[in-house]
Amino acid sequence: MGVDRRHGLLHSPIDHRWETIVATRETPDLLPGTLDMLVLKALANGSNHGYGIAEYLKARSESVLHVGESSLYPALQRLLLEGWVKAEWGTSENNRRARFYTLTTAGRRQLALEREDFERMVRAIQRVLSHA
Amino acid sequence: MGVDRRHGLLHSPIDHRWETIVATRETPDLLPGTLDMLVLKALANGSNHGYGIAEYLKARSESVLHVGESSLYPALQRLLLEGWVKAEWGTSENNRRARFYTLTTAGRRQLALEREDFERMVRAIQRVLSHA
Repeated sequence: MGVDRRHGLLHSPIDHRWETIVATRETPDLLPGTLDMLVLKALANGSNHGYGIAEYLKARSESVLHVGESSLYPALQRLLLEGWVKAEWGTSENNRRARFYTLTTAGRRQLALEREDFERMVRAIQRVLSHA
Repeated sequence: MGVDRRHGLLHSPIDHRWETIVATRETPDLLPGTLDMLVLKALANGSNHGYGIAEYLKARSESVLHVGESSLYPALQRLLLEGWVKAEWGTSENNRRARFYTLTTAGRRQLALEREDFERMVRAIQRVLSHA
């Protein structure tokens, strides 16, 4: 990863532009109740720091999902307390100290459960909505 | 509608068994943030009372969505305040006084907006979840 200023792309993981990105969100809210599941999913392929998690969700959702610091860090605290993620200090790509989060085995199980619940709930809601 | 005791089906709109139905819910929560949309949808084909709305959502979702009084009535109050539904007293199928809720024109517009937001958000979440 690196910073590509020509295209205005922000690949830099931890810097002052975090606030800017959060402030310019054009979407309403994340669907409540889904943030923990999304954070677990963001860590399913390897450790990441908070900024990296937010960027992952934004990129994979094609900019529909914007997760601000004020909801991301409380979510990570909840997941730590539940034992679904663990954290350790490391050095980010641009040589800054950052807390890296890793999915635990229990966290991987939890992700599967939450995903199942989510899909079942969405199918039920869509059945209601599609009824003429 | 009527009460069919042979099959243990509860069609009676407003009676003491309401509490029983809520107490035996086997699902976790309704996906938060979707209740108002679902209540608007439940009224899209005509007026109904609170119990009827809950029964409609349960039936159409094949028993996945269970809406208790403690969340349904605050939701109806919010929708009344927003002008998306209106209410008037009437007589239910089994001859009891009940408050009947009706979707307003603004409510119908709101339902379309919430549905659009919901579908877009769900598609985004599913894109994240399905990424290997």
